[in-house]
Amino acid sequence: MSTDAVPVDQDLLGTYIQELGAIGETPEGMYRFQYDDAWQRARDTLLTWIDEAGLDGRVDAVGNVFGRLPGSGDGVVLTGSHVDTVPSGGKYDGALGVVGGLAALAALRSHGTPTTTLEVVALCEEESSRFPANFFGTRALLGLVAPDEPERLRDRDGVTMAEAMRRAGLDPGLVADAERHDLRAFLELHVEQGRVLADEAVDIGLVEVIPAIAWETITVHGRQDHAGATPMDLRRDALQAAAQMTREITALVEQEGRPAVVTAGRWTVEPGQPSVVPGLARFSLDLRHPDLAVRDRLLDGVHRICATVAERHGVVVDVVRDKDEEPATMDAGLLDVCRDAAERCGASWRRMPSGAGHDSQLMASRVPTAMVFVPSVEGRSHTPAEFTSLLDCARGASVLASALHRLAY
Amino acid sequence: MSTDAVPVDQDLLGTYIQELGAIGETPEGMYRFQYDDAWQRARDTLLTWIDEAGLDGRVDAVGNVFGRLPGSGDGVVLTGSHVDTVPSGGKYDGALGVVGGLAALAALRSHGTPTTTLEVVALCEEESSRFPANFFGTRALLGLVAPDEPERLRDRDGVTMAEAMRRAGLDPGLVADAERHDLRAFLELHVEQGRVLADEAVDIGLVEVIPAIAWETITVHGRQDHAGATPMDLRRDALQAAAQMTREITALVEQEGRPAVVTAGRWTVEPGQPSVVPGLARFSLDLRHPDLAVRDRLLDGVHRICATVAERHGVVVDVVRDKDEEPATMDAGLLDVCRDAAERCGASWRRMPSGAGHDSQLMASRVPTAMVFVPSVEGRSHTPAEFTSLLDCARGASVLASALHRLAY
Repeated sequence: MSTDAVPVDQDLLGTYIQELGAIGETPEGMYRFQYDDAWQRARDTLLTWIDEAGLDGRVDAVGNVFGRLPGSGDGVVLTGSHVDTVPSGGKYDGALGVVGGLAALAALRSHGTPTTTLEVVALCEEESSRFPANFFGTRALLGLVAPDEPERLRDRDGVTMAEAMRRAGLDPGLVADAERHDLRAFLELHVEQGRVLADEAVDIGLVEVIPAIAWETITVHGRQDHAGATPMDLRRDALQAAAQMTREITALVEQEGRPAVVTAGRWTVEPGQPSVVPGLARFSLDLRHPDLAVRDRLLDGVHRICATVAERHGVVVDVVRDKDEEPATMDAGLLDVCRDAAERCGASWRRMPSGAGHDSQLMASRVPTAMVFVPSVEGRSHTPAEFTSLLDCARGASVLASALHRLAY
Repeated sequence: MSTDAVPVDQDLLGTYIQELGAIGETPEGMYRFQYDDAWQRARDTLLTWIDEAGLDGRVDAVGNVFGRLPGSGDGVVLTGSHVDTVPSGGKYDGALGVVGGLAALAALRSHGTPTTTLEVVALCEEESSRFPANFFGTRALLGLVAPDEPERLRDRDGVTMAEAMRRAGLDPGLVADAERHDLRAFLELHVEQGRVLADEAVDIGLVEVIPAIAWETITVHGRQDHAGATPMDLRRDALQAAAQMTREITALVEQEGRPAVVTAGRWTVEPGQPSVVPGLARFSLDLRHPDLAVRDRLLDGVHRICATVAERHGVVVDVVRDKDEEPATMDAGLLDVCRDAAERCGASWRRMPSGAGHDSQLMASRVPTAMVFVPSVEGRSHTPAEFTSLLDCARGASVLASALHRLAY
């Protein structure tokens, strides 16, 4: 590591990771959902750490948690990620970017007052695990939250986001107050969640683009019948049609090859009895490609498959688009700063696309943004088996700190 | 109808069907589960009707409801079916055999005291909709309930069967008291639940055999991964493997042809998030064929498919046998009595296998048993769309009454 690198305190970072990873941990993995008890404990713990690091702590109107190292000039360079998890999630996705950013600002504090204010942030509801409100924290910062969202959106238990906010000490009427106009740049440290860096034994990934994600819900309406008394040739089995659709969709995307991916992760089959031919089958489609044109061509193929299979099986299919994200291009200048930082830290690096979506993709639409990846062991993520070595975590945080130093001092 | 037929009161039967069908009815179909509020109301309504028909009402230790027309000699000829429903079920499955039997006994009462006592019964938990206790009422009559079943078995809300029994006024410690040793014959009137009679415009089906049903739970263990960051070629997607299995299993059984049927009606996919590659997929298998050897050959094929697909997809599969029923052969002498009764009623008839399982299949292992089918419109069953015309219902009940007359007078 060269003398103008800014190494973070590896032990401190390790403590952060372990202690944050114990909040919301269950035998089936991490369950830390927006505004729930575990999330509130994480918020309080972060505020304690922010205070201990000599930074100014603050929670904004939607629950984004900030730690601030005030600068002498205008504007703010922001770093961070999210602390909410998927169900049965891991300890690194999101969390590393928050505690890595905190460790970076703790290390930078000894370099004196920066020219530009530095802030680390834990953003709200990146995963949409509790509320259908993807990137809620980032959207609040950018003024992109619809005023009725907190009252309109409900979790699976029927609790509105507004009610959950109130329980967490927040006033849902003040969401608009979270908007920021002083952000000059955003840097996000994150685990890769894939196996490219680990397979190639590269230390740091510099993300150039975040893919265009489409989410659809595909519902197949067949005919509910008796499983014993209805001959195979007279059935309109919704599940069989849906199973055929997902197999043909998968084959289509496999034929396209990397980096196209498609996933059918959520299934509902009704009435869900062993002795009843399913009358309804519904599944989620998550289709991603960094090139919007390729993604949309694949989606056309998906829709053709659904229509063809539905006709063959005598069922009716309907498709609803739930999410339609543009690909997000990272800022070339910021990526150069991160590349230089990696080299100063003695880290090997490569440019790469992200497989997953991130707060950065939305931030990039308004603020120059870059992402730094560290390796995920076996590429595992969105599972309790998610793991990145402390050495890799600390290397990533040091690259982040070194880049922030270049930007703010 | 010849003069020695015993016609039932069609209006009375129609009232029974409509009023019983209103108990547990919802916009999504019938929900009348063992021991729940709707079931208790059905029990009380039946007892009122039994009383009004001049029969002796009784509820046994497990909740089977009896109406008795005492005879001068020994033994009992029993008729009936069940009043519990599948979720989102119809008004005829089970219910017709109970109210048809009641209408038959009401009609026979005017013929004086029978030589052999006649009883109509509403049997408990035929469908296994609430508790995994298939044919619970019939098993109790035959002394086949394990003493620990009520305390061991739980519904989906965790309520034990014992607790549910207590709430319905029953003592789960007395289950053994329900055993009967006086049954001489069992006749069950039922809707076909398939479309054979309706397609061929035949009035009455005389069931020769009830198929050998196998239920299995097939669990696929894959690898939970991030839906964006895990290339298609590196996945071990449990759902994709399961979808492929069910498609190949279906193709195998379709190739075998009628009357082989297979259904995958219940699905669990975990963690069930759009953005997560499923780590686990579990589905139910319901495979039926009247010939045990054919059924077992098909099951061998199912297991080969599961093993082959699992290997191809890099996942692990395990298969648990949940139910393994022998085919049940109906009593030839009783079938002749039913055929004669049909002819006396001027009804066309055919011999046929049952597609579905019934209380009769278990009863047949201990007591001479026969089943009488009436047509199901479009073969619909286990759905609110289940329907049999009142004319067909009454014709079936009259055939039943005529057969009971021949047996008991």
